[in-house]
Amino acid sequence: MTRHELVSLIKERRSFLCVGLDTDPTKMPTHLQGVTDGVFQFNKAIIDATIDYTVAYKPNLAFYESMGIEGLQQLKKTMDYLRQLPQKAFTIADAKRGDIGNTSKQYARAFLDPQGEFGFDAMTIAPYMGEDSVTPFTTYEGKWVILLALTSNKGAFDFQLLRNDSGRRLFEEVLHTSQKWGTKENMMYVVGATKADMLSEVRAIVPDSFLLVPGVGAQGGSLEEVCRYGLNQDCGLLVNSSRGIIYASSGTDFAEAAATEAHKLQQTMAAELARINF
Amino acid sequence: MTRHELVSLIKERRSFLCVGLDTDPTKMPTHLQGVTDGVFQFNKAIIDATIDYTVAYKPNLAFYESMGIEGLQQLKKTMDYLRQLPQKAFTIADAKRGDIGNTSKQYARAFLDPQGEFGFDAMTIAPYMGEDSVTPFTTYEGKWVILLALTSNKGAFDFQLLRNDSGRRLFEEVLHTSQKWGTKENMMYVVGATKADMLSEVRAIVPDSFLLVPGVGAQGGSLEEVCRYGLNQDCGLLVNSSRGIIYASSGTDFAEAAATEAHKLQQTMAAELARINF
Repeated sequence: MTRHELVSLIKERRSFLCVGLDTDPTKMPTHLQGVTDGVFQFNKAIIDATIDYTVAYKPNLAFYESMGIEGLQQLKKTMDYLRQLPQKAFTIADAKRGDIGNTSKQYARAFLDPQGEFGFDAMTIAPYMGEDSVTPFTTYEGKWVILLALTSNKGAFDFQLLRNDSGRRLFEEVLHTSQKWGTKENMMYVVGATKADMLSEVRAIVPDSFLLVPGVGAQGGSLEEVCRYGLNQDCGLLVNSSRGIIYASSGTDFAEAAATEAHKLQQTMAAELARINF
Repeated sequence: MTRHELVSLIKERRSFLCVGLDTDPTKMPTHLQGVTDGVFQFNKAIIDATIDYTVAYKPNLAFYESMGIEGLQQLKKTMDYLRQLPQKAFTIADAKRGDIGNTSKQYARAFLDPQGEFGFDAMTIAPYMGEDSVTPFTTYEGKWVILLALTSNKGAFDFQLLRNDSGRRLFEEVLHTSQKWGTKENMMYVVGATKADMLSEVRAIVPDSFLLVPGVGAQGGSLEEVCRYGLNQDCGLLVNSSRGIIYASSGTDFAEAAATEAHKLQQTMAAELARINF
């Protein structure tokens, strides 16, 4: 999906919500546990219930890999389902990969290649190994790298905020340096909502880039704060919520409860978009 | 595998060679291409030919994931084969994962759990997201985190060598800070052979830790230099070679050619171990 298509989708749906499909079989409603294709059935119900309020879906691969090969079958079914829906959605493999160039090419093929099993629109990448670990993900037309800049966890303080001898913190260095590796048409950044006030510092470096913002909801970030510091003229945000939506209820009404939570977030988002005349 | 068992294995086999099973179906001998279980057959032949000279095997997951779900079936067969062999070998999932704590736990379960499909001894992890992204991998008895410190690629220069305002370069900061997250019994570090002279700087910070050293051979690193700067009283090194061994010949004699290359490296290693009276 190109940037133009993504911006149009946000405009049309009045939403920049990303639903994190971090499906843990032990947290699904009991009537879906132990059932054939239970994980896919859960994801399908969540997608059906939320797609009118949502522009993106982000399965975190760890949850699928922890179920072994069967988990990847469930992920493939989920992606096949998403790709055939009449309503479009931007899809993100939350994989946080990154390896030497030769190897990153293999990861790009695994997850982004339109002929591959998954055909995601975008993939999250860790920047530690530098340029040649990142650029292989930018070579597919209409596909995106989403580079980790400032994450939403406690461990973000260990290295990401260290200041180097030119005065930049590591996440700022990542934002600066990676400008040479891609464009606003094929590179986004992860910036955690738990550090929303730092979004203005991020925006000073990458005013035009899209930002993927995790950490709203269960992790404690505020959507209003994220909007205040993060919105740009093209919206420029994808705000993710995982547990707050997909586990809104543990009963048979899980999909309705997910719809209610997604709708609430979408309404706030619509108001924020109206505020900036988008 | 515990540290004690690993050190004993190195002593017995007079080798600290790790063979990188980065199996690319397009680079396998033509008689194995398009054959059922061809990737597993290739890996099995390489393992059989090299195990007397080798203490560790390291499949890079990217190569298997790029083949889709079938690729992971081939990886599982390879791991099942390794685990039932009478000769022991240390197994490393070269995955370079790392996510928020909750999610890293899922990755740890996927690859390290003895009840899981793979049951690797160790897994490579990227440090960018800090402590809570790393510690879930240290909770399994006899299992290891192998944290990226200084990688062998060109992109290593982008961030890993940046000096912070306390005078440490990022890879040194990773070595220092991570000392609190694990012990020499459950944490190793990746240090690329293409920067062998920097191994003495690494050793100044982590004198006792095992180091996994990629980049010997195809990437240009020298085994003798790695030994000079990296060996410690327990050996403390696992030196990886991938392409130089597994693609030593592209003909039907690929396994014999792999054995020859592995044997050469093992002989150099045996001489280096003798030199330090190990």
